[in-house]
This record gives sequence, structure tokens and C-alpha cells, in this order.
Amino acid sequence: MSTVDKQLEDVKATIDEEVPRRISVSDVTYEGPELVIYTRDPKEFAANSDLVRRLASKLRKRITVRPDPDVLAPPSEAESAIRELIPEEAGVMDLNFHTDTGEVVIQAQKPGVVIGRRGATLREITQEVGWTPEVVRTPPIESSTVDNVRNFLKQEREDRRDILERVGRQIHREPMSDDEYVRITTLGSCREVGRAAFILSTPDTRILIDCGNKPGANGEKPYLDIPEAFGAGTNGIDAVVLTHAHLDHSALVPLLFEYGYDGPIYCTEPTRDLMGLLTLDHLDTAADDGRTPPYDSEMVREAIKHTIPLEYGDVTDIAPDIKLTLHNAGHILGSSVCHFHVGDGLYNVAFSGDIHYDDTRLFDGAVNDFPRVETLVLESTYGGRNDYQTDQEDSERKLKQIIQNAYDRDGKVLIPTFAVGRSQELMLVLEEAMRNGDIPEMPVHLDGMIWEATAVHTTYPEYLRDGLQDRIFDEDENPFLADQFNPIDGGDEERQEIADGDSSIILSTSGMLTGGPAMSWLEQLGPDPDSTLTFVGYQAQGTLGKRIQRGIDEVPVGGSGRSETVPLEMNVETVDGFSGHADRQGLENFVKTMNPRPEKILCVHGDESATQDLSSSLYHDQNIRTFAPENLETFRFR
Amino acid sequence: MSTVDKQLEDVKATIDEEVPRRISVSDVTYEGPELVIYTRDPKEFAANSDLVRRLASKLRKRITVRPDPDVLAPPSEAESAIRELIPEEAGVMDLNFHTDTGEVVIQAQKPGVVIGRRGATLREITQEVGWTPEVVRTPPIESSTVDNVRNFLKQEREDRRDILERVGRQIHREPMSDDEYVRITTLGSCREVGRAAFILSTPDTRILIDCGNKPGANGEKPYLDIPEAFGAGTNGIDAVVLTHAHLDHSALVPLLFEYGYDGPIYCTEPTRDLMGLLTLDHLDTAADDGRTPPYDSEMVREAIKHTIPLEYGDVTDIAPDIKLTLHNAGHILGSSVCHFHVGDGLYNVAFSGDIHYDDTRLFDGAVNDFPRVETLVLESTYGGRNDYQTDQEDSERKLKQIIQNAYDRDGKVLIPTFAVGRSQELMLVLEEAMRNGDIPEMPVHLDGMIWEATAVHTTYPEYLRDGLQDRIFDEDENPFLADQFNPIDGGDEERQEIADGDSSIILSTSGMLTGGPAMSWLEQLGPDPDSTLTFVGYQAQGTLGKRIQRGIDEVPVGGSGRSETVPLEMNVETVDGFSGHADRQGLENFVKTMNPRPEKILCVHGDESATQDLSSSLYHDQNIRTFAPENLETFRFR
Ligand SMILES: [Zn+2]
Ligand SMILES: [Zn+2]
Ligand SMILES: [Zn+2]
Ligand SMILES: [Zn+2]
Ligand SMILES: [Zn+2]
Repeated sequence: MSTVDKQLEDVKATIDEEVPRRISVSDVTYEGPELVIYTRDPKEFAANSDLVRRLASKLRKRITVRPDPDVLAPPSEAESAIRELIPEEAGVMDLNFHTDTGEVVIQAQKPGVVIGRRGATLREITQEVGWTPEVVRTPPIESSTVDNVRNFLKQEREDRRDILERVGRQIHREPMSDDEYVRITTLGSCREVGRAAFILSTPDTRILIDCGNKPGANGEKPYLDIPEAFGAGTNGIDAVVLTHAHLDHSALVPLLFEYGYDGPIYCTEPTRDLMGLLTLDHLDTAADDGRTPPYDSEMVREAIKHTIPLEYGDVTDIAPDIKLTLHNAGHILGSSVCHFHVGDGLYNVAFSGDIHYDDTRLFDGAVNDFPRVETLVLESTYGGRNDYQTDQEDSERKLKQIIQNAYDRDGKVLIPTFAVGRSQELMLVLEEAMRNGDIPEMPVHLDGMIWEATAVHTTYPEYLRDGLQDRIFDEDENPFLADQFNPIDGGDEERQEIADGDSSIILSTSGMLTGGPAMSWLEQLGPDPDSTLTFVGYQAQGTLGKRIQRGIDEVPVGGSGRSETVPLEMNVETVDGFSGHADRQGLENFVKTMNPRPEKILCVHGDESATQDLSSSLYHDQNIRTFAPENLETFRFR
Repeated sequence: MSTVDKQLEDVKATIDEEVPRRISVSDVTYEGPELVIYTRDPKEFAANSDLVRRLASKLRKRITVRPDPDVLAPPSEAESAIRELIPEEAGVMDLNFHTDTGEVVIQAQKPGVVIGRRGATLREITQEVGWTPEVVRTPPIESSTVDNVRNFLKQEREDRRDILERVGRQIHREPMSDDEYVRITTLGSCREVGRAAFILSTPDTRILIDCGNKPGANGEKPYLDIPEAFGAGTNGIDAVVLTHAHLDHSALVPLLFEYGYDGPIYCTEPTRDLMGLLTLDHLDTAADDGRTPPYDSEMVREAIKHTIPLEYGDVTDIAPDIKLTLHNAGHILGSSVCHFHVGDGLYNVAFSGDIHYDDTRLFDGAVNDFPRVETLVLESTYGGRNDYQTDQEDSERKLKQIIQNAYDRDGKVLIPTFAVGRSQELMLVLEEAMRNGDIPEMPVHLDGMIWEATAVHTTYPEYLRDGLQDRIFDEDENPFLADQFNPIDGGDEERQEIADGDSSIILSTSGMLTGGPAMSWLEQLGPDPDSTLTFVGYQAQGTLGKRIQRGIDEVPVGGSGRSETVPLEMNVETVDGFSGHADRQGLENFVKTMNPRPEKILCVHGDESATQDLSSSLYHDQNIRTFAPENLETFRFR
């Protein structure tokens, strides 16, 4: 018998002791991080709401109860009963019965109403029909991304259960080694922005954190081929953890499956969906530019299939000696600070991912309160000694002025942005400014995935700030549904019309002018001295955005195959308060107010000078051991 | 066709161009780092002494010329011709003809005489009989170690040629990666003395430098199981380089073959033989102490079979992108500072191994002059701020006084030493002191491999200082053959007799009282207040030697199974000038006079305080970037 089977027998014995005789336990298995208990008495389990909580705390595991298939009410019968139990105003759209797991997926406009106070309605449902209800939201704005992910996962249910069972056995295997150590190996994003990737390793486990590309570079990948990563095959990596969906963190996650990786990806649900959206768009962009895409779209589906979504705050076993907890990072939808607890109190490491320290219109500021942390791996995008940004109020004033000026000249304002995060923040700013009459009403065109990304935001409002959540649920108040927003769906013809037309604002990807429809807009508007190009986000070394900021006066247009240029006669402005990244002050505050104070900080995800400045100032001002690692180094803790 | 075969075709074409028509080239292959040219005209090659040199410089390879077997004079005929050509005084003992390679191994008492001025006699031999002569020394003191190694290698010639051919193809394979980097991973001997092991890696190559055990510890091995080392199997390691034969550097090299390693070991010839001697003794000691030996003696033979011996100064390709050169380290017989040249001028790293900076009776001081070095990995045994040692003259005076005092009390002097290095140095000191009448003549007993190690020294006099070489060749002057030296060969009975007898000096292994016959001596002499225990070498943390220095007053005796003790009533003295290691001053001088000045220094192979003291003082005094790494870290250079 394998050690996992042996251990499951022990678990089963404990459960048998705890569960009253009259409630049957027919089987116990692992599915991913969860322990699944099969029973012929699902109604009894539901009636004893305390029982599962008691088992979970005794076994120190997350527990799911599943009915044996033959004790369930037939779906047709169950459906009427369920619809009867749920209040009308929940807006139930659809019910999906899965006989393999005894789950019924309820899609509704107001999931909270379906769930009831502390899950009361859900328990009632199980008590009545035996099925285990799972509730998902009907997005207020239809998102093909979310639809596709949900349909795909429905269709792949069986495959997915196999994956989860395998992963579950991996997680709960017996640790083998007598050694004790914790190491971090840097594969990318050290003394540079882009290609984030780190290995967290113990004698028993290796975790890959992020796997991004480098914007504007010629396919520079993280160093995935070294022995600590995938150099000796894909078996050695136990799990991938994704901080957020931006391509400099996620773009090469699907590539791992081409390498043969077959393990889990842990991230939030919105990160999973946005990763799908952005990586598929990334493949399209590559193809449009005549480059060879780094992998097939099939690999994106593999990545989604292998994703185990976690919610903020859930403490989850992801390896025999590692527990992962995600916390809000304030940067984009679903972005996480990833906290790793190693061993039984041995060591704790937090990876900040990208963070925004202060609250924004979209998100609460990043969490920096943990039970324990000895080492922090901290982004340093704006870590340079002068990287203090104006506050958002001033920035908004400046942006509005730029728009007003362009409007007065009959010009347009082109704002290159990431599809995810900054676009939605700007939409909120612009909607409010027009509603208040601060700037004239005019169309705001959204090009290149921005609308789709916005739809994903409305699917997961629990990841947004409270006030915004409420507005999104109210159709008349949903700011993203304001009239002036126009998703571009007519291609270059529509763009031409807009360029020839009246004043308007254009938000378009990519955010650093490394491709995407922003290039078409630049071709159209570049020579127009009445229009204004406005940067609102970080421009990495080597990107066209950076070069324009430095003052070049013509820009290449068309794909990589062509070498045409247009003169750049439009105005160029930078408004720096809208970044999704904490500025220098925010980074300092994040550390200063962090609880507990970390012993060591690795400053990464910033230019050489930014990481070194931040490292040396945190050391001098806050007396913490800091490092500005290079790629390909390994640090040992404990 | 493989890339190696393709490349060999190109090499052959170049050779065909360079070699005159009348000289045939029948085949070209790789054997280890050498390029072997087969010819039907070995005599012509020998007559054109310039030709091989020209080819070597053109191809930038080490070249060996071999005759096709059927063009050779028959061995019996060749033997008489060869004996005729070599002057009588060479003392030729034995000739061994190897038809597979066309080599004849000539064993002689004076190899220099066989070789002739600049190899003239050797060339004459080939011109006359076709065979390629190789000369080995008949040891002035018979060494079973050297005999065993030579016989074993003779018997394994075929296997060995297979190995060399495979290694040769490995070395000359095409590099695969576009990346460029140089990394060092620390597997052991960081902030500790013992279990030396490092990985030097590039995108294409991984080299293991040393693989030792930790004296006095419970089998603490270097971290060989991490992915950078052997975690993913033994395929990833291209070569093992051994700085010297001490067990803290060599003890676990044979274990690698149990792991499945099948590649080459590079070191000097004496290091190979001493590694055989010391590791076999290490296995015996383990068995005697009732411990499970870490591997079978068969693995020691595998290690010897896979060794490719190099001479000081030879620049040798050991991987597609790495050239290795060994230099005298002044520490023990055959000990080397290992210089790695990476890529085509990309980077240079020197590993000091253990070094002695000043000249000693046995050896010249360590070499610190290199074409280029950016990073130095430096031993720090005596790197502590107070680790300045008295000079050898004072030390000798002190030792003589200790001996005189013991003699006056009718006591004995027990000196625990490493079998290799310090023992021979002390023998020279004692022989001279008695010859000069500084101390009374008395027996000097040599226990536990010391005599055998001395015999190995006399086999390789070219590794000793000039004056000493000359004395060794002259039977009447060979200091190691002085009458007072008595190798213990009668076991505990002989030891008992000596302990009960008149004054004498006992040199015995192990040097840190971690086992070996020194334990029997301690049991015999420990309670004798007239005798003196004298430490002359470094005592590592956790060893009995260290505990006695700290003042314990009874010592455990017998194997690990027993728990008896004897009271320690004998005098305990430490004479510190005899160490094989550079003291703090020596380490500082090594760096100060190093040419060129290194950019970075990793201080290793020393206690935590020693490595940190040395690191910080080299930084402050010499303004070099220094580090005191921990085990399991990786540093990136370039
Ligand atoms: Zn980001
Ligand atoms: Zn980022
Ligand atoms: Zn040594
Ligand atoms: Zn050593
Ligand atoms: Zn072999």
C-alpha cells in the first residue's frame, strides 16, 4: 500500500470515530487540496452543519462532502424543488446537474440570494434533494472569456477529476528527506521588469511562482532550462503559483504544458480567466506580427484545465510541506500577494507579485498583514530614488486638462493601456468626469480586449471595492455600462472613421506600444499635431513606449515584417499617478507598516537602479537585510 | 552524422592539409581531452618533431599520435632495441607493450634519463621501433598503493579506452544553448570545515568540484541531492574535478559512482593515488568502528578507472565551453588550485582548494599567478581575525622542546596527523633535528597509512621541492629512509610494547582524533602524565581533537559501540606552525600578491566566524567584493 493510501486509511478511521453511526461514510479520497467524503446520507450531513467544521479542524484539511450517486433525487425532480427553494429575486438562469460528483451548478444573477444567510439556503437544498449546490454568477456584462472557460471546464469534468485526484495524492504524499532548508532561485525579473519567475524549494518540494515574458524583448524567456526549474524534465516541479494575469507574469505558463508539465496552477478565479484572455490575445498578436507564437492555443486550455482556483485568505496545502494563502495585492483584478508557510512553523515567505499600496477606485490597497513572514520578495517597479508619483487627484486633474486641450483643438487623446486594470480605472475616472461635467461628453473607444476585460471584472465583483460592487449590481448605475463607452468591433475601417471624426478618447492595448491595435492608432494619429498620446503606465526598457518618452520623432508602423515609419507629430504626455504599481513611497509604506516586520527582503521586478535604490534605502531606513538579486541566483533561508 | 563526427571530419581535413603526403593519417578520434591521430608512419611523425606541435597549435587541441598496430616491430624485437637505446643508469625495470594503442610503458628508476634532453630518446625509440613510449617511475620506496593502481589500470585498459572515447565525445560536443552565464552553487564547506563540494555551471555544462565528508560529523554529506547536483540523476554532471586527496574533499567521490555517475574525474596523478589510499582506509575505519561504510571498495576502483590525470600547467578542455588548468597549491602532494576558463574569454574562476602560501620543507608555496581570474573561491580555515600562526622556525623550536621534555621524563610524544602532508613535513623536521643533534635520537613510529603515504611521495618527486627531489633520488640521502622511522606493522601488540618501552615519538592518524590507530594510542598513553599529546594541525568543530584542546579530562576509547573512557592525564600541547593551511597572514598575502587581482572572492572552508572575518577584512583592506556564502546558495557571474 502506498503511503498516501495508508494515510487515507488513518483519516477514514478518524472520520468513522467522529461521525455518528447513523450517518454512513462510503469512501474518502483526495481531490487537489481537498479531502472528499462520500456518503449515502448527504441530507444528514447538511443537517449537521457543525460536523464538517469539526472534521476539518480535527483533520486540518479542507473537506467536501459528496453524495453517492444513487441516493440523489432525479435531476428533473430536483430542479423543480431547487427553483422552489430559491427566492425569485436571485435571478436563477440555469441549473447543471453533474451525476459524477452529485453537484448542481446554479447560475444566477445574484449568487448571494441563492446562498442565503451563512449558506442556509444551500443547506436546505441538500437536505431536500441530496445534491450539493455550487453557485456561479451570471455576469452583468456578457463575457465570452468567462463563458468559454465555464463551458470548457464543464466539458472537461472527467479529465479534471483525474488531474485533481493525482494532484491530491501528490500533495498528501509522505515527505522523504531529512534535510531542512528553504531556497529561492531567481529565473527572471531580477534587475529588469518582465519575465517574472521564481522557484521556491525545500528538500521535498519545488514551486514555480509566475512564468512571464518580457515586454518589448525578442522572446526573452525566464531561465526555465536550468536544473532547478525544468532542466531535468517537468517532474520536479510540484506546483505553479500565479500572482496575477499580466503577461510579464503569466505569458509562459501555458508553455510549461508544452514542456510536459502536468501539475496544478494555483491562482484566483479571475486570474485564471484573465490569463486565458491575455495569453490567447498574446498568441493572436504574435501571429498578426508575423512572429511564431510560443505555443499553441491548446496549451492555454491545458493551463485552464490544470488551474485550482483559490480565494483570498484560504490556507491551502499545496505540497506535503507547503501551505499557500493568497491575499489581495490591489494591482489588478484577482492579483495576489502569495504567502507560503513552509514546514510545521519552519519558515514563511511572501511574494508580493505586483502591488498597489493605496486604495484605488477599483481595489483596496495590498494586504501586508500576515501571521508570520521571514522573507519578502518585493516588486520594485517604482523603487528608484525619484520614483515618487503625484497623487491620483492631481493626476486626474492633469489628465482632464489634456483631454480638454485636445478637445479644444478638435484632436483625439490616445491612451495606451494594459487591457486589464488601468483601463477599468480610467473608465471609472472618465465616466465620473463626464457625469460631473468636468470634461465634455465624448466617445471613449475601447480597443483590443479592454471591453472583454471589463466584462470579466463585472463577473467577479467580490474582488472589487465595496462601493463599486454595489454600483455594478445596479444596472442603471453600473459605470461600465455608461453610453459613451464604445468597444471597437469594426476593425481598421471603424478606426479610420474615428480618426477622421470628431474629438474622442481612445483606450487601446498594448500598454507599452509593443504591438496590438495601439499600433494602428499610432499610424492614424501619429502625424496629427492636434491629438495627444498620453502614457499613464510604466514603460519598460526596450519598448516603443519608452523610446517615445525619450523623444524619438518617428515611429515604426505595420508588423515586424515591414520597416515603414510615420512622423510623430502628435503631442506626447505622461500622467504618472494612474499606475497599478505602488510608487516609491507606497513600497516604503508597504514595508514600514508590514506586520510582522520581515527579516529579509529581495527587491525584484524593477530596473537595476530601481532595485538597488530600494534595496539600499530599505536597509538604511528600516534596518532590514535586503538584496537586489540577479537572475539565476539562489538564496538560502533556514 | 552526429555533430561530433561532423566536427571530426573537419579536423581530419585540416590534418590532411598540414601533414605531408608521404605521411599517412589513417584515423582521427577523441580520447578524453586528447585528439588521437592514427598513422601507418609513426617513425615519420617522430622524425618531424615540429609537425605535432604545429597541428596542436592550429587545432588548439592536445594531440597524441598512435601507430596502426600492424606497422609495429614485434614486442620481443622492440624490447631489445629499446633497452639498447636507453642509457644503463636509467635503471629500466620493466617494459609493457600494449598492442591496442601501440604504447610501451617503460618503468625506470630515473625517468628523466629515459626521456633524454627534451624527449630526444623517446623520439629515437619511436623512430626505431614505431612504438610510443610512456615512462613511469619505479618508486624509491615501494608503495602498494601505487602498485595496485598501476596494475588495476593495466588490467582495465579496454574499459578505460571506452570511457575515454565516450568522455572525448562529450567534451567535443557542440554547445547547445544561446544563453551565457557562469554560476557557482555551494553544496558544502560553507561556514564550516568539511564536505567540500561546489557546482560550477554554464548553460551547457556542470562541473562538480570536490566531494568530501565532514570530519567528526555523523556522515553529513554535501547536498548532493539538489537538482543542480544529482537530484535529477547523474547525467547532468559533465566532470568531477578534485583539488586534493584529503577526505574532506575526496571521501565521497567514489559514492558518485554508486549514484550512477559515469564521467571523468580530473586531478593530478598523486591525488588519484592518494584518494585511493585514503578512501579505502576510510572504508576500513568505518568498518572497524562498526559503522556502515558509505560505499563498497569497488566504487573506489571505479573512481580510479574514471580518473584522467593532469599535470600542473596543462590547459585541458573538459567540456565544450570549459578549460581546466591545475596549479600547485602547496598544501599536500598533488594538491591543486583549479583554474577554470569559461567560454571563449567569457569568464575565469579559480578554486583554491586548500592552500599553503609560503614554501614549506615539502612544497613550494601556492601559485597565485593566472592569465585571468575574475572570481576566486578561497579556503578560509585560518581566516579568523586572530588566526596568525607562529612561523615554522619558532614552531620547530617549540616542538623540539616538547620532545626534549617528554624524553627527560621518559615519556612519549603522540602527534595525531593526517597521513598525507603534515606527517611527511614532520618526518623531515625530526630527521633533521636528530641528524643535527637538536634532540636525542629515538624511534619515530609511523602508524596508520603514514608510511604508505610517504612511499607515494617518493613516487612523485616532481611534485616536491627541488632540493628534496634530489635527496630522494640519492638512496643514502633520502630523508624518509632514515633509520629511526618505524612503520607500525605489528598491530596492538607492537603498540603495547612501544607504550611500555623507552621514549619515542609516534605519528598516527587520524589527525583530528576522529578514529584510526591514534585512538589506540590515546587509550595506551592517555593516563600517562609523563607523555605529551601534541596537536600540529587544524582541529575542526565536533572532533575529539577539538574537545581535548578545549580541556576535557577524559576521553572515550574503543569503537563507537563501546562507551568506555580513560582519564586524560598526559600533557596536551598545540604547536601551530605546521599546518598545511595558510594562516590569516598567508591568506591575505595570497590575495594581495595575486595576479591579476580578482573582482570577487567567495570565502569558504572555514568556521562561520573565520569566513566572515576574512570576507570582511579582504573587502575593507583590499576593496574586493567578497562573500561568505552559506551552503545551498547559487552565485551568478556574467
Ligand atoms: Zn502586473
Ligand atoms: Zn509585473
Ligand atoms: Zn586539505
Ligand atoms: Zn580541506
Ligand atoms: Zn564506468
